Amino acid sequence: MVKKSTVEILDTTLRDGAQAAGVSFTLEDKIRITLLLDELGVDYIEAGWPGSNPKDEEFFKEIKKYGLSNAKIAAFGSTRRKNSIVSLDENVNAIIKADVDVAVIFGKAWTLHVLEILRTSKEENLNMIYDTIDYLRKHGIRVIFDAEHFYQGYKEDPEYALHVVRVAEEAGAHAIVLCDTNGGTLPNEVYEITRSVVNTTKKSIVGLHMHNDIGCAVANTLMGVLAGARHVQGTINGIGERTGNADLVQILPSLVYKMGYKALKNIENLKRLRDISMTVYKIIGLEPNPYQPYVGEYAFTHKAGVHVDAVLKNPRAYEHIDPSYVGNSRKFVVSELSGSANILGLLRELGINNVSKTDERIKRALSRIKELERQGYSFDKAPSSAILIVLKELGYHKDIFVRYSWRMFVDSSGLSIVIIEINDIVDRVIDIDPITALKKAVYNVIKRIYPEASTITPTTMSITNIDGKMVRATMEFSNGLYSWKTQGVAINLMDALMRALIDGYEYYIAMKNLGLYERPSIDIFRNTNISLQSNMNT
Amino acid sequence: MVKKSTVEILDTTLRDGAQAAGVSFTLEDKIRITLLLDELGVDYIEAGWPGSNPKDEEFFKEIKKYGLSNAKIAAFGSTRRKNSIVSLDENVNAIIKADVDVAVIFGKAWTLHVLEILRTSKEENLNMIYDTIDYLRKHGIRVIFDAEHFYQGYKEDPEYALHVVRVAEEAGAHAIVLCDTNGGTLPNEVYEITRSVVNTTKKSIVGLHMHNDIGCAVANTLMGVLAGARHVQGTINGIGERTGNADLVQILPSLVYKMGYKALKNIENLKRLRDISMTVYKIIGLEPNPYQPYVGEYAFTHKAGVHVDAVLKNPRAYEHIDPSYVGNSRKFVVSELSGSANILGLLRELGINNVSKTDERIKRALSRIKELERQGYSFDKAPSSAILIVLKELGYHKDIFVRYSWRMFVDSSGLSIVIIEINDIVDRVIDIDPITALKKAVYNVIKRIYPEASTITPTTMSITNIDGKMVRATMEFSNGLYSWKTQGVAINLMDALMRALIDGYEYYIAMKNLGLYERPSIDIFRNTNISLQSNMNT
Repeated sequence: MVKKSTVEILDTTLRDGAQAAGVSFTLEDKIRITLLLDELGVDYIEAGWPGSNPKDEEFFKEIKKYGLSNAKIAAFGSTRRKNSIVSLDENVNAIIKADVDVAVIFGKAWTLHVLEILRTSKEENLNMIYDTIDYLRKHGIRVIFDAEHFYQGYKEDPEYALHVVRVAEEAGAHAIVLCDTNGGTLPNEVYEITRSVVNTTKKSIVGLHMHNDIGCAVANTLMGVLAGARHVQGTINGIGERTGNADLVQILPSLVYKMGYKALKNIENLKRLRDISMTVYKIIGLEPNPYQPYVGEYAFTHKAGVHVDAVLKNPRAYEHIDPSYVGNSRKFVVSELSGSANILGLLRELGINNVSKTDERIKRALSRIKELERQGYSFDKAPSSAILIVLKELGYHKDIFVRYSWRMFVDSSGLSIVIIEINDIVDRVIDIDPITALKKAVYNVIKRIYPEASTITPTTMSITNIDGKMVRATMEFSNGLYSWKTQGVAINLMDALMRALIDGYEYYIAMKNLGLYERPSIDIFRNTNISLQSNMNT
Repeated sequence: MVKKSTVEILDTTLRDGAQAAGVSFTLEDKIRITLLLDELGVDYIEAGWPGSNPKDEEFFKEIKKYGLSNAKIAAFGSTRRKNSIVSLDENVNAIIKADVDVAVIFGKAWTLHVLEILRTSKEENLNMIYDTIDYLRKHGIRVIFDAEHFYQGYKEDPEYALHVVRVAEEAGAHAIVLCDTNGGTLPNEVYEITRSVVNTTKKSIVGLHMHNDIGCAVANTLMGVLAGARHVQGTINGIGERTGNADLVQILPSLVYKMGYKALKNIENLKRLRDISMTVYKIIGLEPNPYQPYVGEYAFTHKAGVHVDAVLKNPRAYEHIDPSYVGNSRKFVVSELSGSANILGLLRELGINNVSKTDERIKRALSRIKELERQGYSFDKAPSSAILIVLKELGYHKDIFVRYSWRMFVDSSGLSIVIIEINDIVDRVIDIDPITALKKAVYNVIKRIYPEASTITPTTMSITNIDGKMVRATMEFSNGLYSWKTQGVAINLMDALMRALIDGYEYYIAMKNLGLYERPSIDIFRNTNISLQSNMNT
């Protein structure tokens, strides 16, 4: 048996990822992400820059309290300052103080940067690199050397760029990482230039650090590995300065499943990939990209009627990999034209098998969905409201909360009074915020009408206006185990909120009546396998 | 002088893009996007599937009323049905009825699809391809042949895949397009397989149609062109089924500026790229991706202090291309640590040059921004509110609307009454929606206090809750020429809305007082060049 080549993985979400506009981490965020990355099984976690940022120093102390199972923590830093003595360099010594096993040191490989930005000589730049690596090595630290702007440097002055590599190797760098810092290098150039470096290095392994400025960070990383690199740097979800870094979430499954390399401590960990990706989005406060390769909500979502038919015959027809390998799942979009077959698929998931494809009620449900989307509903974001429509049309659910009205008084003194009436039961809540008061009042009434729903809470909410006329309110609900999303669209904000709120409770009751609360293995509460949307195209 | 190779561009936003979950086009949307694509200068616009979708037929009629300057409209369709006569095939005849100059016909190139999905013989599949292309050609239509699943087909049965190419070429296809339908092919495989096809075709040109399932659609397209393909298919912003199609917005500038190919009718059109990309997002109703290569809001945004310094010395230090080539611009994020220098940059843009880097007022402004972000503000999304803080701290703006209060009554009968008081001036508005009433009442009062602000309207609004406690309201304003965004965060929804509303008017007045309304060439109203955000990392 041939032993597969191993590729080292360094995650820099906490360092280079923190350079992304819109991203900032608290100490607690950094700890949480570190533990996730350790669980995923990466080799190194580049966690901060102790010399530049005093707050990162806290992290290096704090993380020692956690016993990591897989990953080594790495500190980031630059080479020593020009014309100085490395042992007196504060930033370099900050790395030693951080008490890490691994340091990632960046240095210049492009003469433009040496001469115009650093404003030093080519010779002194080489000395800075050698001294810093050598000094840290003598302190027992493994050094990964990031050769900044390597590809651009190589294209303009290959001799100097290779000289930088040689010096880093002589100084004892474990890995020499070729950085496409500006992200503008083409995949074929990456292959050729990486190949030439791999051919000239003997002791150090060659690494890759790609940016996505021309949309090629993932492909460039794969091409670099094909050229012989054995160390890959990237971030979760590709977050990073400008257009971001290479996305490890996209790179890892291709490396392992498509190219046959060994990476991560355990290949099975890739099943956690979608979950880890989504958790990192949540920690950062960014909306997940539903179109993200491998892990996105829509990555295995089939919409065209011909595709749905084919996938039901053989998933390989329109799937490049089994979605479960990365913790994702297959989904179908129900559209006006491709509709009936997909609605039947949904009903099967709900345990309803006695409805035929040509049933008039299905057509009515689809046309109702279509009509509501014209009014401004977006069921992709709130499939539970659409599933309710189908169930009601088929007679599997009957609305419980039917007559409702409200009255609200809000005053800038900080007083909001909401009076709500559902099915003739009235409640009044006073709160600072009118929406909080509305949610509480609805909850109070509903638990009197249907006590089992008292464990349900709306968790998140977003409101947008459509065309300056209608308001769309989307709400997520949870019972602690599952979550589901509903939507209300209306001219009046409170009306839209009420519709989303009521749907949230109705959906829970509908699922409970179908016995699905007792069968949590069917993940119907999260609606991960069915998404409803009406659409004119197949 | 060497004549550069030309690459044909086919946009399929309206056809394959419409397969994306979350995307559906009205007839009007399709017309608008067609006109944008024609303006961009693509060669073909694949606009719909007349045989499959009766609503697409309308489009082909309607678009004839517009005289397109650059692009040819293409209709999409499949090969004739198995074991049938092409001249009797409804779908194929629907293309002829659509009265287009160009047809894009897809056929199977993977034996798995021929045998398991189509359930016909390999021989009959070849006949279906030949007959369909030949028939359409005899009706004077140029045929582009999409060889579905070509790369997978080639890997499993290269002889059959090449046989399909030969048959399409013999039937007279203008281009034979190699489709990575499942999107799982690696860039090196694309290069090698495309090369082998280019080497065997003589009359037809070779095209590429890539999907992004492993994050390589853009790179795969570039690699295919390097291998000799001269026809490229893709969509604006990469929208498409599952993870999407190859993004033309990312491909075009690389093809033209980095690889030296000729594409589009006029290279200058690429300056419209950002604008066209954003308009298509708007039409579809998708949030733009701020990290999108070339055109994203953050594509040329520098956050790290060392990067900002370097870019000010020489933009090439951290920019792979001049952002103006694609209609984008350079931006700096102001963070707590990298702060002062970037605030000075912002002030220079506003014509304020007499503030020094160490000014205490700048530190105070930054610490105020930081504090508000802790409370839940996200100034990345509403830089105007942050700019106001800086201007107020420096004494360049003094709030005009200082004392305000409101009272609101909302009833489910469809009645919302808002009473507002600003600087002792009172107004009352009755409307169906409370937010509309609030906006109208504030407008009424403000135009009495400051009549020049009467041309200002809030255009879009979004509200989210943070941690279930605070509410964040973001508003966009416009005076017809420029737009700007403000934000309010508070426990009470109405309070958050009021803060965002008042800031929107204050910002307009501040800019006017700085004389910037009279200097519209400085695009400060859109805040395209400055984004403020406090951050712990450099």
